[in-house]
Amino acid sequence: MNSSEKPTQWQRPHLISLADFSAAEYNMILQTAASFRERLASSTNKVKKFPVLQGQVVANMFFEPSTRTRSSFELAAKRLSADILNFSPGTSSLTKGETILDTAKTYVAMGANLMIIRHQQAGVPQTIAAAFDHLGVNVRVLNAGDGQHAHPSQALLDLFTLCLLLDPQEPRLELLRGKKIAIVGDILHSRVARSNIWSLTRAGAEVHLAGPPTLVPRSFAQIAPVQVHWALEPALVNADFVMTLRLQKERMRQQLLPSSREYHQRYGITHERLTHCRPGVKVLHPGPTNRGVELSSEVMDDPNLSLIPEQVTNGVAIRMALLYFLGTQGR
Amino acid sequence: MNSSEKPTQWQRPHLISLADFSAAEYNMILQTAASFRERLASSTNKVKKFPVLQGQVVANMFFEPSTRTRSSFELAAKRLSADILNFSPGTSSLTKGETILDTAKTYVAMGANLMIIRHQQAGVPQTIAAAFDHLGVNVRVLNAGDGQHAHPSQALLDLFTLCLLLDPQEPRLELLRGKKIAIVGDILHSRVARSNIWSLTRAGAEVHLAGPPTLVPRSFAQIAPVQVHWALEPALVNADFVMTLRLQKERMRQQLLPSSREYHQRYGITHERLTHCRPGVKVLHPGPTNRGVELSSEVMDDPNLSLIPEQVTNGVAIRMALLYFLGTQGR
Amino acid sequence: MNSSEKPTQWQRPHLISLADFSAAEYNMILQTAASFRERLASSTNKVKKFPVLQGQVVANMFFEPSTRTRSSFELAAKRLSADILNFSPGTSSLTKGETILDTAKTYVAMGANLMIIRHQQAGVPQTIAAAFDHLGVNVRVLNAGDGQHAHPSQALLDLFTLCLLLDPQEPRLELLRGKKIAIVGDILHSRVARSNIWSLTRAGAEVHLAGPPTLVPRSFAQIAPVQVHWALEPALVNADFVMTLRLQKERMRQQLLPSSREYHQRYGITHERLTHCRPGVKVLHPGPTNRGVELSSEVMDDPNLSLIPEQVTNGVAIRMALLYFLGTQGR
Repeated sequence: MNSSEKPTQWQRPHLISLADFSAAEYNMILQTAASFRERLASSTNKVKKFPVLQGQVVANMFFEPSTRTRSSFELAAKRLSADILNFSPGTSSLTKGETILDTAKTYVAMGANLMIIRHQQAGVPQTIAAAFDHLGVNVRVLNAGDGQHAHPSQALLDLFTLCLLLDPQEPRLELLRGKKIAIVGDILHSRVARSNIWSLTRAGAEVHLAGPPTLVPRSFAQIAPVQVHWALEPALVNADFVMTLRLQKERMRQQLLPSSREYHQRYGITHERLTHCRPGVKVLHPGPTNRGVELSSEVMDDPNLSLIPEQVTNGVAIRMALLYFLGTQGR
Repeated sequence: MNSSEKPTQWQRPHLISLADFSAAEYNMILQTAASFRERLASSTNKVKKFPVLQGQVVANMFFEPSTRTRSSFELAAKRLSADILNFSPGTSSLTKGETILDTAKTYVAMGANLMIIRHQQAGVPQTIAAAFDHLGVNVRVLNAGDGQHAHPSQALLDLFTLCLLLDPQEPRLELLRGKKIAIVGDILHSRVARSNIWSLTRAGAEVHLAGPPTLVPRSFAQIAPVQVHWALEPALVNADFVMTLRLQKERMRQQLLPSSREYHQRYGITHERLTHCRPGVKVLHPGPTNRGVELSSEVMDDPNLSLIPEQVTNGVAIRMALLYFLGTQGR
Repeated sequence: MNSSEKPTQWQRPHLISLADFSAAEYNMILQTAASFRERLASSTNKVKKFPVLQGQVVANMFFEPSTRTRSSFELAAKRLSADILNFSPGTSSLTKGETILDTAKTYVAMGANLMIIRHQQAGVPQTIAAAFDHLGVNVRVLNAGDGQHAHPSQALLDLFTLCLLLDPQEPRLELLRGKKIAIVGDILHSRVARSNIWSLTRAGAEVHLAGPPTLVPRSFAQIAPVQVHWALEPALVNADFVMTLRLQKERMRQQLLPSSREYHQRYGITHERLTHCRPGVKVLHPGPTNRGVELSSEVMDDPNLSLIPEQVTNGVAIRMALLYFLGTQGR
């Protein structure tokens, strides 16, 4: 937890989860993302291309549909001059009965250097990474979301967004020490929440979870230093940041939730409710949002409150940093 | 209407419609497209790449399926060295309940500089462009077809094709003054026809519309200086050019049309019918064609009559010119 | 058949089938693929990009879904610095009633230099190539699999894989003279088998076909110098190589096969069965495999037996060689 650990060389071969991330690793990524972000903000477009992954092949293996995350990784890879292969499950060999690992090994044999994997089942990226290591295959795996397990690049971009706000010159983990952060919504099914809990508690933030009892089990407090609330207000009181989570419509069909309207009435983030927070409070959402459900349209469109566009912009810089470290170091 | 207006600097931030285009604007685009076309016709392939949009990101937002127009824009962007993000509605967040504007803003936050939008609803590109301007977002919107409203890049490539034929060295708007142009088919539902009416009447051409009464309302003559015919022959007599429009099969289900066969008997373009036109008459079609419906296979395959392949080739050059102006000027 | 024919300049405008390939042509491709493969195996990523097709446009026209072959061609084209247009039938004009040839001509008019075509109907690539030649269109067609007719790039990568194993320094056709090669499975419906029969018999290999009587007609022995077996063992005895073919599940619905399990019992390749072969025997499969059907999982995962990953790697090098010859020579 000592964030003054000196960042050294990048060691990690794959990025699967943030569970065992050190402060030094977080800070390496934050600093590198910050330098990419600065270049991307330049008014000269040509400086936005970096030749660091030239000749490398990034395979985008999205077994679960995604626009936002896939495009973000794709653009990050293009900015770094990599060649990209998009695997789309609809037209794929999977329908022909091939195993996921065989599909992955095919892309390795074609020449993939980095593999970005999203899958509806928890553990798939880990399993593939372990198989590669076992086989002596030098290909890096980046988990882009697996079931309800983890979505590390999302948590890193959230972390980057918070730290950048607190110190635009030198974003670093320790800036969040003692900050109160409320995570609101469907914690139970959220890989975003799980990954954020790892990074935020590692930073020493005070993490409060809030949501309906069916979606926020008390047991979370036993596995991580967080506080669980079934009412919204205690989580919001004096909060520095409010992270809202996407509500899946299918949870209502599973009768874990009454209706979008009732959810909004009890847990939706509005200007009025944000008065409980600290002045200057900011709101995050991983997108895509259901306007008027997780948060009111007014909050979403209030540039003094919403960090949502910042999150998207920072996502590209974070993913460039991850591709850069995995693609060029720790081999 | 004075086509000797001197082309000056490009001013327009977005391309939504041709309704208010000046002769100077048309001529700037025609001249720039001609110079791109010349380079693309070179036998040396390397000269076909231009570094003008290097580092810029073009987001292809096709909410309505399209192969031809999307590929044409994609190739134009690649020729100009841009990075491209393809948004495909099938695998998109739209199915997750996000608004179109939120989706567009997500691509802006990722770093899109230019956004090419096709949507089945008229007004979507305009609405998004207005929202960007209102928010101070410096992203250029290019309408690639919205409902029955407009398809400006198609009308520009049609215009370019006609002018290039009349003067390959110096294609310009005034070449069409006094030319008789027949537009045949489903005018009512055609964004292509509407955009062509703007450009061709601006050029001072004599525009004649022809088609079944259910698809060519007399009211068109009240909103633009065009002549409306429900019989084909009067439109064809002494015509210099015949523009055919694609017939949507669904119009028959809506009982606006009896059958493809009857349509062809009354309005299909054949060698025989083209004898009414001026010698040297040429036929256009925006594609994809229904062979034997809008025009006979023989006309379509007659290189002395059909300008269809020219239209496709010119489409890439026109879109390069549009991306070039929107991407580098008028900021 | 004289493999000492001196390789001269590449002459062939299209690659449709291997039926009339000369030894000189095979050897030109093998040697060029070998030099590409050597560069791709380098630890320096930057040397994996070649500027030979810069400014050229490769149109990937896959009317039949494919992941593996499409990705392999796409990566080969990217390694050679071409621009790529992907045509996907789902969102295409085909659903709008356009003919295949009109679609192909549209991509030609856009500027495609090379067209890679896969279609479920035999003869489509040949028909399009012939139409291009007839029209004087200088676009090269590469058959990426048409119905049950041919899949030449697959047979070439299989050939390359075998020759490279026999002489990594100088892979050439004559290395296979007198080698015994068993092709096992659904020969009747396999374009891969048909193309391999052309190349392997041309090399002077002893080709043995084995599979169920419904899937391996005796008539094959009348059209090519091969031996047909309905039992597996005679094909395996003293074999140097065993090529397995993918079993389409739909053949069972057509009652040409009892079940996957029974197929494996009679024709599945296992360690035990491979004891009939020569020591050092190797097994190939074009992928995607049905583990436990065409071959046992143990065989598939045995690096001393399986050449499957080599086939995939060699596929990119072979396709680079083909795109290189068709894209730069024989004009």
